Amino acid sequence: MAAETQPVRGMRDFLPEQQIFREQAIEKIKRVFEKYGFMPMQTPALENSYTLGKKYGEEEKLIFRMKFGDEELGLKYDQTVPTARVYAGNPQLGKPFKRYVIDRAWRGERPQAGRLREFLQCDVDTLGTKSVMADAEIIACLDEAIKVLGVKKVTWRINTRKLVSNFLKSCGVADVKQQFAMRAMDKIDKIGPDAATKEMIEKGVGETAAGTCMALLKTKGDLSKIKKSILIEPAVEKELDELIKYLKKFGVKNFTFDASLVRGLDYYTGTIFEAFSPEIKGSIAGGGRYDHLVELFSKVEIPATGGSVGLDRILEFLATKRMKTLVKVFVIPIAGVNAIPVVQQLRKAGINADLDLMERGVGKNLEFTSKQEIPFAILLGPEELKKKKVKLRDMKTGKEQLLTIKQAIDKLNKIF
Amino acid sequence: MAAETQPVRGMRDFLPEQQIFREQAIEKIKRVFEKYGFMPMQTPALENSYTLGKKYGEEEKLIFRMKFGDEELGLKYDQTVPTARVYAGNPQLGKPFKRYVIDRAWRGERPQAGRLREFLQCDVDTLGTKSVMADAEIIACLDEAIKVLGVKKVTWRINTRKLVSNFLKSCGVADVKQQFAMRAMDKIDKIGPDAATKEMIEKGVGETAAGTCMALLKTKGDLSKIKKSILIEPAVEKELDELIKYLKKFGVKNFTFDASLVRGLDYYTGTIFEAFSPEIKGSIAGGGRYDHLVELFSKVEIPATGGSVGLDRILEFLATKRMKTLVKVFVIPIAGVNAIPVVQQLRKAGINADLDLMERGVGKNLEFTSKQEIPFAILLGPEELKKKKVKLRDMKTGKEQLLTIKQAIDKLNKIF
Repeated sequence: MAAETQPVRGMRDFLPEQQIFREQAIEKIKRVFEKYGFMPMQTPALENSYTLGKKYGEEEKLIFRMKFGDEELGLKYDQTVPTARVYAGNPQLGKPFKRYVIDRAWRGERPQAGRLREFLQCDVDTLGTKSVMADAEIIACLDEAIKVLGVKKVTWRINTRKLVSNFLKSCGVADVKQQFAMRAMDKIDKIGPDAATKEMIEKGVGETAAGTCMALLKTKGDLSKIKKSILIEPAVEKELDELIKYLKKFGVKNFTFDASLVRGLDYYTGTIFEAFSPEIKGSIAGGGRYDHLVELFSKVEIPATGGSVGLDRILEFLATKRMKTLVKVFVIPIAGVNAIPVVQQLRKAGINADLDLMERGVGKNLEFTSKQEIPFAILLGPEELKKKKVKLRDMKTGKEQLLTIKQAIDKLNKIF
Repeated sequence: MAAETQPVRGMRDFLPEQQIFREQAIEKIKRVFEKYGFMPMQTPALENSYTLGKKYGEEEKLIFRMKFGDEELGLKYDQTVPTARVYAGNPQLGKPFKRYVIDRAWRGERPQAGRLREFLQCDVDTLGTKSVMADAEIIACLDEAIKVLGVKKVTWRINTRKLVSNFLKSCGVADVKQQFAMRAMDKIDKIGPDAATKEMIEKGVGETAAGTCMALLKTKGDLSKIKKSILIEPAVEKELDELIKYLKKFGVKNFTFDASLVRGLDYYTGTIFEAFSPEIKGSIAGGGRYDHLVELFSKVEIPATGGSVGLDRILEFLATKRMKTLVKVFVIPIAGVNAIPVVQQLRKAGINADLDLMERGVGKNLEFTSKQEIPFAILLGPEELKKKKVKLRDMKTGKEQLLTIKQAIDKLNKIF
């Protein structure tokens, strides 16, 4: 493939054989989101630079920015910040406001690392309530969405930023350095514990504190062990208990508490969560509570929580069936007969139908029908026309039937 | 609304009450496109600058461009150029390749003029065939898509760039100046005939030629009159006759020939068309044949034709019903009862259900249900729980029924 026919590095073209399946997956996810009471919303791809500014921590450098005349713009980095902006500007939306956004986000990662720089996010968020019931509902909803796609053996890792904060305090990390420590912790899986420790020390976390922190992180998962070594504030413990209680009520059983879970973005304040499957490398869904993000726009405190399914990553790893076409019947004219009225009748009856636009012979047309994996062909010659019939050919068996158009429509409608 | 909660100028946020309806409209359009044998495809928002370069004529200055590291990128201006790029790079897609793309495009118009700078395009294209049957099929497909949305009294204006070329030659416009004359002609509705004439002259078209051209443009619509004053090449006339014949076969009757139709983009080579409705200002769909665009990427000639529905413009003008929510039932706990298992049962049965996340009282919750326009509420107190029943309330009539959950599910599934 010549370079000039390639998409931008780290971005993908989705040909029909991928996109048909992808859109069906999106439909399934939408259906789950709507069942859970989330309604669709959409925001522009571009945001003003000041909207995107200083909300993503160090990941901010990954924003695709541009100048256009006197405007400073950037492609949205996630759906959360634009949602916070919209909610702050539309108080009539009420409380709680449950919305979903299925849209792309753009991150200027190094494409060499195999990371996509344009990817689809399937986000659900609940704004306006502090209740951890809302956190649990988000997880339940995302869990169902992932499973509907066919992912098996899903597990959720769950934690709260409040516990991470207790933890860092116990390790002797100063309050003002917590942000840097969290960013480094989030990278452990990517860069390894040594590099993460080094980063902490470079950011001024202190050698002893960084060391204690790394040692304790190994006890992940076991809350009772964690409790022995960390001073957990009673309110934090109570909140964790509540979250676990609600998760069970929502029917989510596939979760484990993980004290080492941090998540990269600076805006998280409470519950955080990530989903994994042994079938797929990396996390397939994640999110958390961000109680102080909306107030950057609204000036009043608006608690919020949300999460996202990484559809493209999931579809890449799943053994998805590819589908070349949704066309059910291909109409082939014989000996100069005009097939347009027949194809239009099929379409009017709701059947996906196509016809020869290349003025090919019957043989070539049958070959095309078969290559495109279209299940039926209709052959239409002067003889059929005279009898007011069509010849319907099952491409799999080769069996042909002489039918009226109405009979052919009935037959096709029964099958599909 | 404070400035910092606004989207980028000329771009729009779609709140649920708009987006629910918008997504339903997109679903309808997709259904029509697929019935006509077009399959979905998607390309990234960003393209390399050299992909976007020099294919849009003077409109190129409207491309949102950015530098990212050593990359020069731009937001796609339409779906046609990216499609040409993809098709050139994927010869396995075969001939013809019929695809649709429903995606946004970005144009840096002056937002003062009321034009959107981000807008949704619903595109169908057929690549690989010269047949004007394909042009007619595109028009038939777009016509059905527009009507499915509820637009009434649709008329198509139809012409071919070849006739425009004959026309300009008859007026004495030199071949090398035709492009400039066409661009000016395309602006007549926007800037008026005087300014258009002036532009032609400025671009070197010649005063007499420009004058003749403007005088003749007034005879639009009447092909027989046109024929008297213009030397139409026989091949062009034959092609026009064929197009009209095919349109009729496809069942399209609502079209008129219009010699003044040009369309702005430089890449058109043959049939061009635009749809109008007296209900809506400006064109609501349009497109044309572009036989030399794909070869810029493929190096071999690949004829192509396509068109687009302007969904956002249509929805803006239609008296669309707004829908606040798709939630069918809101579950309200009484006296500390936990309502989660009930709401999960409803969802499992496929019913869009929601529940109180604010720990509000019954009165406030009923008020919320009514304000959100949710048609049913379920009241769940200790008494109902003991009887293993729920109280289903019709929010419109206020009528309440004591039912088992199964009965409630059956009732709701029957209604929706």
